Amino acid sequence: MQFGANTFIWASPFSTAAHLSLVDHVARLGFDVIEVAFEDPALIDLDALAGRAAGVGLGVLVCGAYGPGRNLVSADPAERAATAAYVRTLIDAAARLGSPVVGGPAYGAVGKTPATDPTARQRERDLAAAELRPLAAYAGERGVRLALEPLNRFETDLINVVEQGLALCEAVGSPHLGLHLDTFHMHLEERDSGAAIRAAGDRLFHFHACENDRGAPGRGQVAWPAVAAALADVGYSGPVVIESFTPEVKSIARAVCIWRELAASQDELAREGLTFLKMLFR
Amino acid sequence: MQFGANTFIWASPFSTAAHLSLVDHVARLGFDVIEVAFEDPALIDLDALAGRAAGVGLGVLVCGAYGPGRNLVSADPAERAATAAYVRTLIDAAARLGSPVVGGPAYGAVGKTPATDPTARQRERDLAAAELRPLAAYAGERGVRLALEPLNRFETDLINVVEQGLALCEAVGSPHLGLHLDTFHMHLEERDSGAAIRAAGDRLFHFHACENDRGAPGRGQVAWPAVAAALADVGYSGPVVIESFTPEVKSIARAVCIWRELAASQDELAREGLTFLKMLFR
Repeated sequence: MQFGANTFIWASPFSTAAHLSLVDHVARLGFDVIEVAFEDPALIDLDALAGRAAGVGLGVLVCGAYGPGRNLVSADPAERAATAAYVRTLIDAAARLGSPVVGGPAYGAVGKTPATDPTARQRERDLAAAELRPLAAYAGERGVRLALEPLNRFETDLINVVEQGLALCEAVGSPHLGLHLDTFHMHLEERDSGAAIRAAGDRLFHFHACENDRGAPGRGQVAWPAVAAALADVGYSGPVVIESFTPEVKSIARAVCIWRELAASQDELAREGLTFLKMLFR
Repeated sequence: MQFGANTFIWASPFSTAAHLSLVDHVARLGFDVIEVAFEDPALIDLDALAGRAAGVGLGVLVCGAYGPGRNLVSADPAERAATAAYVRTLIDAAARLGSPVVGGPAYGAVGKTPATDPTARQRERDLAAAELRPLAAYAGERGVRLALEPLNRFETDLINVVEQGLALCEAVGSPHLGLHLDTFHMHLEERDSGAAIRAAGDRLFHFHACENDRGAPGRGQVAWPAVAAALADVGYSGPVVIESFTPEVKSIARAVCIWRELAASQDELAREGLTFLKMLFR
């Protein structure tokens, strides 16, 4: 099993001008992979990133960030088109960086206005399927897979559980589209995180290991042994990535509602989490 | 152990004109207590409610609802005063109805604008303490206890965990102020729900049993055996109340972010939950 750390643990927005040394730092902490949150692709020099990662033998993963204005199911066609263009940029970046997946909730902006009723909600999911179909094809042509992340109810009304994620994949009908599961969201939404992972099966393309309070994995209530057993059962061989968020950057702490210290330092969170995950998956 | 059901499972806003028959319904379902969400006290005829409950031998509990505009730590003194007046109304209602506690997050509105930084956040908690001090005294004079409910990070930035709740109680320094814990919020925020209950100890005045997905208790991931053991350890003898929310009333479903069906019916949710809790606490 490969282990990764998301740049959000330390930086937001990640830029190669300001944060390229994170690549060395993540390698030194003992991770195999750095997952880069592409908040603003213009801030990321792909060649510099690829070179630095290759230099320390670190893999690179691409993850999308879908804040306000980046909504694939917006009523505004221009916003939909811009969001699709953003996803294509991420796919191109993934192809350039050797990232096998592009993760994140590409189906709709985090914190978007909820649909007015279940019918309108289904219409938005149908729209997501229509928008995702050409994007999945685009990814497939470049040897990349799109992995959609279900989020908890406070962050989206569209895809909260694996069952809904699988229905969306089914509607798109592409082998290049699957799921990106995150233990934090599953802990809140699924009746059984292990069963949810098993239901995802070979549609599980990417995995985030996050504690229920967004602190170091292993220190909280996530059902880790059940999660690990289910990942083994479905033969998941992709990376397991720790995601948390720096409390130093107010806008991101606010976006994910982190209001208290979750570790003595972000390095400690990453280090403790990695030690725990290595033990868990041994 | 006494078991209760919150009116939010079926109605919002609860009014005696429209929903008095819920009293009989909750009794027929086998509960000992009905917890009434006082969204709008003007809609609740206390004599009618007390009479109907006495008629079927059901206890009544009072729970506050702190939507927008009902913020005890508002920057607007008029809003603070109106919120304090609301809490006094709830205390009076509790005294009239024989409810030993007034539950809910009285310290601040659900979904309020988060404080700009930790210092501002602590100032709001200090303001909450100052506002709660006379309210706790008012409650004590009427033989009622105020129970503050920590909420998850998506609903408040002020009190997410027991440790913060206890600090607020400590700052107020009244024997009539304690905590109202809810398994849903603890599942998301505490590192160990059992340890959190033990930390609350005799400050635990009220308890909500809610599944991690707000469905029927017992069908999800809440660490029920650990919760039950901790309640026994601290000698909790108050009622255990099931809270969920009717998906039929859009405004409340939206306020608590319920976007999918969590049970075949609200009655089934209540019935299944009660059966499970009775088994758990046997």
